[in-house]
Amino acid sequence: MDILSQYLSAKRDLINQALDQCLPPATAEPRIIHECMRYSVQDGKRLRPTIVLAVAETLACPVERALPTAVAVELIHTHSLILDDLPGMDNDDCRRGRPATHDRFGEGIALLAADALLNLAIVLLGANHRLIGLPAETALDIIREVGENVGTNGMIGGQVADLTFSPAVDGASMLERIHLRKTANLFRLSARAASLVAGATEHQLAALSSYAENLGLAYQIIDDILDHAKSGNPIKGRPRAGPNFATAYGIPRAHALAEQLTREALRALSGFDATAETLRSLAKANLLRPA
Amino acid sequence: MDILSQYLSAKRDLINQALDQCLPPATAEPRIIHECMRYSVQDGKRLRPTIVLAVAETLACPVERALPTAVAVELIHTHSLILDDLPGMDNDDCRRGRPATHDRFGEGIALLAADALLNLAIVLLGANHRLIGLPAETALDIIREVGENVGTNGMIGGQVADLTFSPAVDGASMLERIHLRKTANLFRLSARAASLVAGATEHQLAALSSYAENLGLAYQIIDDILDHAKSGNPIKGRPRAGPNFATAYGIPRAHALAEQLTREALRALSGFDATAETLRSLAKANLLRPA
Repeated sequence: MDILSQYLSAKRDLINQALDQCLPPATAEPRIIHECMRYSVQDGKRLRPTIVLAVAETLACPVERALPTAVAVELIHTHSLILDDLPGMDNDDCRRGRPATHDRFGEGIALLAADALLNLAIVLLGANHRLIGLPAETALDIIREVGENVGTNGMIGGQVADLTFSPAVDGASMLERIHLRKTANLFRLSARAASLVAGATEHQLAALSSYAENLGLAYQIIDDILDHAKSGNPIKGRPRAGPNFATAYGIPRAHALAEQLTREALRALSGFDATAETLRSLAKANLLRPA
Repeated sequence: MDILSQYLSAKRDLINQALDQCLPPATAEPRIIHECMRYSVQDGKRLRPTIVLAVAETLACPVERALPTAVAVELIHTHSLILDDLPGMDNDDCRRGRPATHDRFGEGIALLAADALLNLAIVLLGANHRLIGLPAETALDIIREVGENVGTNGMIGGQVADLTFSPAVDGASMLERIHLRKTANLFRLSARAASLVAGATEHQLAALSSYAENLGLAYQIIDDILDHAKSGNPIKGRPRAGPNFATAYGIPRAHALAEQLTREALRALSGFDATAETLRSLAKANLLRPA
């Protein structure tokens, strides 16, 4: 295993352990919702919480201090995946090679679990004050960041634009706007929340936000390209519904855009020395992801 | 108009004005979600935010200081109403005499609007620190209270129990547990959040929590009785789906329980002088609500 893979694997273990500790036990009543929350959280790559930890490390903040924030970000991500898959949204019945949450637990429990995950994330972020001695003002700043990045100018706004997207009417710029909000926003939130926990300067905060936003969009484009490649391969399943960079731009142009965004992500890190090497590796590795 | 009706009407106007100022304009993009949020919030009785304001007044806290918290509570309430009505939940197509949110806007937009309202509530509560100079620690305490009252031990847990309720298996005690979580919890949260804003003592906090929880359950019982009375009256519509105190207990026993809970709510206020008169009137008036 190369160094980045080892790093990702170690962080994934750490995050999975913290997720397990923070989610209510599946045996606690009402069981069905706790089972559902745990089911939905399973098997993720943990990329967003890894960005939280990697940003914290870049700023010389101990990983343990950033761990509750990393967990909160993964819970928010899972919340959005459950909603994304619902029949009223993308109507996907499969996620991570398993039945989608609503397919396994029914729509009612699925959407309650989604809300419970978002709620738990806010509770965790609010507890940063007590848990790691973060100043109460900073804990509130992070909660405000979540509000702005989740709200109708953020992820929820992106979901709305996704729902109402029409390739015939909306151009490629709308596609970028959708994924800036849906995907890049949560990458950006991951970097900003970690920066606030680590006590970053305004300059560092801006640089790391720009890095994460560009990486987030590049990540979505590569996802769309890999997803597009599955078309016509019945074993790997059908591509996701909804707007897709590969379909809209064609693969060569989509890949060129991902490369350009990656260069911008790396440029944003130019003020950092070797401490940001993991963040640089993450951005470069995204372009080389296997299907 | 009697004194209580005048009070309720004045507070409703104040709350409606504050809601209007805090919700994003319906003309802001993406319009559909902002229209949907405003549509869902319309026409409520504003009982829960009125409890916030009345508790604040009881504790000699100016109404303006409690107003953002009152608005947040109404947004959380609206969030839960949208979810309640969804096809995967109670499947109600009518709310407040108008088409339910999902019926008017589609399920996808409805559930995104529900989330956006919850998110906006958290943002508002987080802003109490900047808006009214509330200590950051207290703002975090209120957010933690929201987390506990909304989460799987609170409203969401109540919704789960409601979804899985079976009159043949679950007894009347389950019915009480469901509505303690679904309805009484948000009344309780209203009183607790207002108490924290007002700087209540531990003793006052406990007393006002008990008042609000008992009133909340009594309120749900009277709601169920009034709702039950609609059966067989095709003009007033069918009773709500799901567990119902009037159906489970019969009207005389349900009303006796509401009276008992009201006495307990009033007893909880025994340590307060005339400053709690509005809270007492609210509890008594609940028993006399017209259909």
